[in-house]
Amino acid sequence: MTMRVGLLKRILSCPPPSPAISFRCSSSSSITPEATRLLKVGDVLRESRRFSESDVARYSEVTGDRNPVHLDADFARRIAGFDGGRVVHGMLVASLFPSVIASHFPGAVYVAQTLKFKLPVYIEDEVVAEVQATHVRENKKRYIVKFSTKCFVDKESLVLDGEAMAILPTLVLNK
Amino acid sequence: MTMRVGLLKRILSCPPPSPAISFRCSSSSSITPEATRLLKVGDVLRESRRFSESDVARYSEVTGDRNPVHLDADFARRIAGFDGGRVVHGMLVASLFPSVIASHFPGAVYVAQTLKFKLPVYIEDEVVAEVQATHVRENKKRYIVKFSTKCFVDKESLVLDGEAMAILPTLVLNK
Repeated sequence: MTMRVGLLKRILSCPPPSPAISFRCSSSSSITPEATRLLKVGDVLRESRRFSESDVARYSEVTGDRNPVHLDADFARRIAGFDGGRVVHGMLVASLFPSVIASHFPGAVYVAQTLKFKLPVYIEDEVVAEVQATHVRENKKRYIVKFSTKCFVDKESLVLDGEAMAILPTLVLNK
Repeated sequence: MTMRVGLLKRILSCPPPSPAISFRCSSSSSITPEATRLLKVGDVLRESRRFSESDVARYSEVTGDRNPVHLDADFARRIAGFDGGRVVHGMLVASLFPSVIASHFPGAVYVAQTLKFKLPVYIEDEVVAEVQATHVRENKKRYIVKFSTKCFVDKESLVLDGEAMAILPTLVLNK
């Protein structure tokens, strides 16, 4: 049986990565000092995405969440009162946050997330996920970072709001 | 453009379902008074699940989250220090909560969720999701319910902890 150790304790007790085994997709040696940019408080990472009918169907299959508000346009409109029809699963929209963080910091480990689902997201809406660093703390060559996490639709409607905490192996931004 | 109205306001301003248009999978007429069981504070809904390599790969594809801790066993073990190899995405584990709720209450709308990822979940671990009603409030024939939400592995290790709030169309349990 695998010994289970708390995430924070596990990550922080693990030796930091050697230069030869980089946490990053691009090796640190290829980054010139001028090009190196470190994540700092206030920085915003963004990603936009439209969820298709196929995305929602595939997400339903893999998670087992077959709530008819996501799969049945008639139910969503007539019974649940969603004018725009089928609603994208909230947790699928929320998956953008760890996705954005991991795309900039491969090897990031998620520790916490709060989510307030404020408005529905409909299929094919353009969703912009914004993840803003609000607090950075170094501990044993790892970085415990708090983020404000928001999703917008139509560039101004806040549909999902919350906060996340992740442990990053580095603060070097490679994007 | 679809008018976006806040989730709580939208759901609570929508007329309650008529007996002819049931929110439930089974029609209410088939439930005898003796068989009708209403969700009450303290009730626990459970679901168990093992996430396979294929589940994690499909989830990565649909969400775009390709963090190597989920996809590369060598990276997960040697670099990130996860003894059990590839880690299931935390948000995939968390998807069990709305899934459990929707399976008992089709048409449920998720309003909020908090998540603390306490221990890693490895591929093929048996995860038990427990959703316990902690507060129930009626408003215009809908039910605003708070849940304690927990996931366990090996029946005792608390891997994921948090709370959820959802609007249910009924309190009748059909499972």
